[in-house]
Amino acid sequence: MLDQAANPSSPPGFDAGSWVCPLPLRDSPTIVMAHGGGGAMSGELIEHLFLPAFGAAADAALGDAAVIEVGGVRLAFSTDSFVVKPLTFPGGTIGELAVNGTINDLAMMGARPLVLSTAFILEEGTELAEIARVAQSLGAAAAAAEVKLVTGDTKVVDAGHGDGIFVNTAGIGLVPEGVDIGPHRARPGDVVVISGDIGVHGIAVMSCREGLEFGTTVRSDTAPLNGLVADMLATGADVHVLRDPTRGGVAASLNEIAAQANVGVRLDERALPIPDSVRDACGLLGLDPLYVANEGKLVAFLAPQDADRALEAMRAHPLGARAQAIGVCVEDHPGMVVARTALGGTRVVDLPAGEQLPRIC
Amino acid sequence: MLDQAANPSSPPGFDAGSWVCPLPLRDSPTIVMAHGGGGAMSGELIEHLFLPAFGAAADAALGDAAVIEVGGVRLAFSTDSFVVKPLTFPGGTIGELAVNGTINDLAMMGARPLVLSTAFILEEGTELAEIARVAQSLGAAAAAAEVKLVTGDTKVVDAGHGDGIFVNTAGIGLVPEGVDIGPHRARPGDVVVISGDIGVHGIAVMSCREGLEFGTTVRSDTAPLNGLVADMLATGADVHVLRDPTRGGVAASLNEIAAQANVGVRLDERALPIPDSVRDACGLLGLDPLYVANEGKLVAFLAPQDADRALEAMRAHPLGARAQAIGVCVEDHPGMVVARTALGGTRVVDLPAGEQLPRIC
Repeated sequence: MLDQAANPSSPPGFDAGSWVCPLPLRDSPTIVMAHGGGGAMSGELIEHLFLPAFGAAADAALGDAAVIEVGGVRLAFSTDSFVVKPLTFPGGTIGELAVNGTINDLAMMGARPLVLSTAFILEEGTELAEIARVAQSLGAAAAAAEVKLVTGDTKVVDAGHGDGIFVNTAGIGLVPEGVDIGPHRARPGDVVVISGDIGVHGIAVMSCREGLEFGTTVRSDTAPLNGLVADMLATGADVHVLRDPTRGGVAASLNEIAAQANVGVRLDERALPIPDSVRDACGLLGLDPLYVANEGKLVAFLAPQDADRALEAMRAHPLGARAQAIGVCVEDHPGMVVARTALGGTRVVDLPAGEQLPRIC
Repeated sequence: MLDQAANPSSPPGFDAGSWVCPLPLRDSPTIVMAHGGGGAMSGELIEHLFLPAFGAAADAALGDAAVIEVGGVRLAFSTDSFVVKPLTFPGGTIGELAVNGTINDLAMMGARPLVLSTAFILEEGTELAEIARVAQSLGAAAAAAEVKLVTGDTKVVDAGHGDGIFVNTAGIGLVPEGVDIGPHRARPGDVVVISGDIGVHGIAVMSCREGLEFGTTVRSDTAPLNGLVADMLATGADVHVLRDPTRGGVAASLNEIAAQANVGVRLDERALPIPDSVRDACGLLGLDPLYVANEGKLVAFLAPQDADRALEAMRAHPLGARAQAIGVCVEDHPGMVVARTALGGTRVVDLPAGEQLPRIC
């Protein structure tokens, strides 16, 4: 039991010493891999543990990115840590993911990314040449996305208490005047769009994990989406919501938006762009591509009258060439995503509990 | 050998595949604990590995904090990861360190800290109650420093590939108009000031490491220094340089400033405020208090005509009550710190190679 007298700064109503796991966290008194999967259990950890513990210091819901106003300027601010295993996989490295992941969180607020911080946690015994390779791909990714690396940190942990290289990036972006993107703007009638092939990143990482090999090589789609978003906004189209479907895949992103906006989403499964190689690998592993992570795709909710214009701009960009309308936002079944299957039936696309493939970013 | 054709994004002049460790990194082909100690080897890792690998994307020298201009507003931006072991120690937790560490990096640019991000890397099997305790102390520290936690991230790694809880924070602060603080402003004649007792944090953490116990309990000095800095600036005193002497202690901070400003520093050892408990523990462990980490102290270079005024304001603040002038900035021996000893001799206070006590933050 924590002594409240000795710790006068405890916020009222939260005593970590006598803290009792609320349902459904109670099922496990310890951290399990699914808590890091970006699905339901990640959400519960934030809602039932971090938010009450942070108390009054926590602002809003600690989303992927925040928009703050400083001196009349609106800034987007975001952070992500990267623990992908292995560090190098077909199509990318942890360094590219670390840049593109934070860039994309900023871009999903409609912001123009400006600067990144980089913080490395290195395990004793890691080869300097390997760190150099990661740092080089990180620098090249930042240059490609036109952001500067302006501040950093390096920590070292004893061998056996880390895993080679963990990287955290945080980023600041500028939200242009007039841009207002977020789940609060989702409306029944919105056209739901994906910018290209789904499920690629998760399968690329999985394909090179020990003991798993497929016939074809699937390369990660890691990419910075700020240019694609800028092109969409430049058309003047009314973009209501943007989300990059990383951990938990398209299914997790659409469920989050549906819940936050209290709207329903109706998907057409036949419209989903799924490469054959991803379909085959998913069949082999018993995975659903809707739940597999992407690192260079976005989901957009577009005002119906503007959808064609935005889609055209997306398809004119190299990262949106295979953009596709995949569904609509509906008034029915608020908070729920349903898919019309290839056979003409419908099924509920649930929020996943965790991530089917852990440590993919 | 990395195939350049397959990796066209490599910046010219840096090929990680054939990367050869430059001296003095060459002594070790792998990461050692001292690379994370904030001393000479940390500096070499940045200068010889990260900066060339990052290439054109790296801006300036990747210092503890950067000042960037956005829409006519000057922002300070900083990040730090925390890997302290154990997670709870006399006087604090990793949560308080994570808040105060980033707050202090911002404050050392003269900035008013506004918002923080928090990113957790959790090891599978860590108790949720322990995470709640850390999160609670983090939230309380943020509330005490009057900053908001606005965005975050959680990753989980398999048991045996992490160490309970690692926390990264990044922060944004607003640099008030007219404030210009940094090593470029150090001038011979400046009075060098410390805000209070040195060596406390490092000894506090060390005192509860397995197998090490001292007679008295030394409690960490972890604290947010933004209020103290605001009070110093409010006097109108011309504050030239501020630095929080964390890893590597006062010795590392003064050496960094001396090198960056190309000035000398002359310390008076007898003026250093060192608590008896720290002196005793250092004697026992064979440590020099000048090299032991602090987490709630600052070193200031003050224009000589303003030093008394600034010192008075510091002493009126609870975190500066034992503030003390400890030396002067000199033209002689640029880049070097020398100390006048209690016996009247002088000695060179070198930049440490690493940190005497690893994983203290």
